[in-house]
Amino acid sequence: MENSNSYKAAGVDIDLAQNLLGKMKKKIADAKRPEMLSPIGGFGGLFQLDLSKYKHPVMVASVDGVGTKLLIAIMMNNFKTVGFDIVNHCINDIAVQGAEPLYFLDYIGIGKLRSPLYEDVLSGIADACKSAGCALLGGETAEMPGMYGNDFDLVGSITGIVEKNKIITGENIKPGTVAIAMSSNGLHTNGYSLARHILLEKCRYNVNTELKELNGTIGEALLKPHTCYWPAVKQALDSNEVNILGIAHITGGGLYDNVPRILPNNVNVIFDSKSMPIPPIFTLICEEGNIPKKEAYRAFNMGFGMVWFVDESESEQALTICRENGFTANICGKVTEGAKKVIVE
Amino acid sequence: MENSNSYKAAGVDIDLAQNLLGKMKKKIADAKRPEMLSPIGGFGGLFQLDLSKYKHPVMVASVDGVGTKLLIAIMMNNFKTVGFDIVNHCINDIAVQGAEPLYFLDYIGIGKLRSPLYEDVLSGIADACKSAGCALLGGETAEMPGMYGNDFDLVGSITGIVEKNKIITGENIKPGTVAIAMSSNGLHTNGYSLARHILLEKCRYNVNTELKELNGTIGEALLKPHTCYWPAVKQALDSNEVNILGIAHITGGGLYDNVPRILPNNVNVIFDSKSMPIPPIFTLICEEGNIPKKEAYRAFNMGFGMVWFVDESESEQALTICRENGFTANICGKVTEGAKKVIVE
Repeated sequence: MENSNSYKAAGVDIDLAQNLLGKMKKKIADAKRPEMLSPIGGFGGLFQLDLSKYKHPVMVASVDGVGTKLLIAIMMNNFKTVGFDIVNHCINDIAVQGAEPLYFLDYIGIGKLRSPLYEDVLSGIADACKSAGCALLGGETAEMPGMYGNDFDLVGSITGIVEKNKIITGENIKPGTVAIAMSSNGLHTNGYSLARHILLEKCRYNVNTELKELNGTIGEALLKPHTCYWPAVKQALDSNEVNILGIAHITGGGLYDNVPRILPNNVNVIFDSKSMPIPPIFTLICEEGNIPKKEAYRAFNMGFGMVWFVDESESEQALTICRENGFTANICGKVTEGAKKVIVE
Repeated sequence: MENSNSYKAAGVDIDLAQNLLGKMKKKIADAKRPEMLSPIGGFGGLFQLDLSKYKHPVMVASVDGVGTKLLIAIMMNNFKTVGFDIVNHCINDIAVQGAEPLYFLDYIGIGKLRSPLYEDVLSGIADACKSAGCALLGGETAEMPGMYGNDFDLVGSITGIVEKNKIITGENIKPGTVAIAMSSNGLHTNGYSLARHILLEKCRYNVNTELKELNGTIGEALLKPHTCYWPAVKQALDSNEVNILGIAHITGGGLYDNVPRILPNNVNVIFDSKSMPIPPIFTLICEEGNIPKKEAYRAFNMGFGMVWFVDESESEQALTICRENGFTANICGKVTEGAKKVIVE
C-alpha cells in the first residue's frame, strides 16, 4: 500500500479504513447468499438471480437512513444496534409488497473513522442481514472531515424480489377487511428530532436519566433496535392459510401517512388506539410535550410497528403467525367505506 | 395533510418536503423505464425484469456518495451538477463489469430542506438517469436538524444487469494487453478533502478566485461533473469489433488502487503519465501542495477517468469508439509480466 501522508494531513486516513475493513471481512462474509458471485472489494457486487422460483420476477428496491437516532447512539457511545436499525427498516419497507430481501448495501458517511464504532456498526449490519437471509453485497465508507464533525450518517439500500402476480398491493382491501397490528418496541427509526426536542431540550433530561416508567434510561428506551417483521410476513406468504391483502410499515408519518399509501380510494380505516400496548417512551414524550393525540399518531408509530389487512375469516390464523414470531399482535382496526382516510379513535 | 406544528418546532418541515417532492414529480417521471411498475411514493420501487435478453442474469449493485465535493457546491451555492456526480459515479462503477444500469435510488441527508437546492439536486439526478437510460426508482430525503447544520450528504445506489458469461472480470488481461484511457474533466468525485486542504486552507484561495491556467474560477474547476462513460462501454459491448478484457473506473485511490482490483496476479501495468492530458486543476494542486507524483496518482485520477484493457489488435477500434463518444482517448499503458502492481512512469 502506498503512503498517504498528504491525505492524512487533510484528515483522511485511507490505511485505517483498509485495515478496519480487513478486520471485518470474516463477519461480512457470514452475511452471504449462494447467489453472490464476488467478494466485497470489486467495483460492484455481483448477485446471480435464481430464476427457478420466478416466472415474472419483479425487483423491489428501497433506500433509507437511520435519521437522528444516530445522535442518541453517539450520546450513548453505543453503536451495536444502529446496524440492525437500518437493515430491518429497509427489509420491512420491501416486505410490505411481499418481496423477499436479496441484497443490501450500506453507506457510512463519517467525519473521522474510528474504532470500535466502525466494527460495531458493520457487525450489526452483517448480523441483521444474516438473520433475515439477506446478502450484504457491498458498501461504502466515506470519511469526510469538515462535513460530519463528530457525527456520522448511516444509509442502507436494499433489493428484493417478488413474483409479479404475488405483489401485495392493497387493491383488494374492502369494507369489512380487518386490520391487525404487530407491536413495535419504541420509535424504531422515526420521530427522533421531535423526541430529542421534548426530552433532551425542553425537559432537560439526558440519555442517562433513569425513569421508573421506562424501566431503564431514556437512552436505552430510545435506542431499542428497529424490529424486523419479515419472518412473520414470510411465514404468512409460505402458508396457505393467510392471504395478506395489504401491509403498511409504520414509519415517519405514523398510521395517518403510511396506511393511505396502500388503500384503495373508496375505503377508510378506523384504528382503535387502545388495541395495542403503547411503549412507555411514547407516553412520556406525549405527556411531557403536551402533544395532541392526532399529532402523536402522525409523528410516531405509537406501538403499531406493522399493519396487515386480512379477510376477517383469516384474522385468527394471521394473529397466530404474528404471535409465533414473537410479536404482540391484535386486531387493531376495521375498514369501512370512505375516501382513503385514516381515523384513529 | 395533518398539521405538524410540534414537528416544525423541532426543526422538521414535513409539509415542505411533500410540496417540493410534488413539484418534482414530472421531472422524476421523465427518468423512467418501461419495466417500472409503480410510481415513486410506494414503500419500495417496483421494477420488472425483462428476461428476454438474459439466460443467466446477474445483478450488479453499488452504493456511493459524492463526498466533500458537496462542500464546494455549498460554497458556490450551485447544486445543479451534484446530481450528475452521484448518478454517473454509480453508473461507471457497475459499467466496469459490463452491466447495463437498470435503476437508481437517491438519498439526501440534510440539516434543513431548502429550495431551490432540493429541486436542483433532484433535477440533476433525473437528467443524468434519463441520459443513461437508467430508471430513477425511488429515493429518500431525510431532514436532520442538529446533524448536518448547513451541509448535506448525497448518496446513490444503483442496480444493473449483465449476462453471466459476459461479465467483464479482467481475468484475461495478459502481458501484451494494451491499456487505453478516456479523459476525465477534473477530480470527478474523489480527492476533495486534499484539494480543499491545499487550495482553500494552505493557499487561502477561495472558490471565486480566478486563475488564468484554469480559464475560470477554482470553484468552477472543482465542480465539473463526474463524467459518464457508460455510452462508450455500451457501444463497445454492442459492437462485435472490440472485446474489452477489463475496465477500471479511476476513483479514490487513483490508478494505483483501482487498476489492481481487476488484474490477474501475474501481471503488472506500466502507465505513461504523459499519455493523457492532465486537467490544469491537478497541476495547480500538485504544485501548490508540493505533492510527489506517486502520491498524486494515488489521490487523484490525474486525467485518467476510465481505463480499458484490450488486445493490441483491437486498440484502434476501441479508441475510435471512445472518441466517437466525445472523449480524448489514448493508449496509456502496457501490461507486462509481474505481480499485480501498477507503475506510473
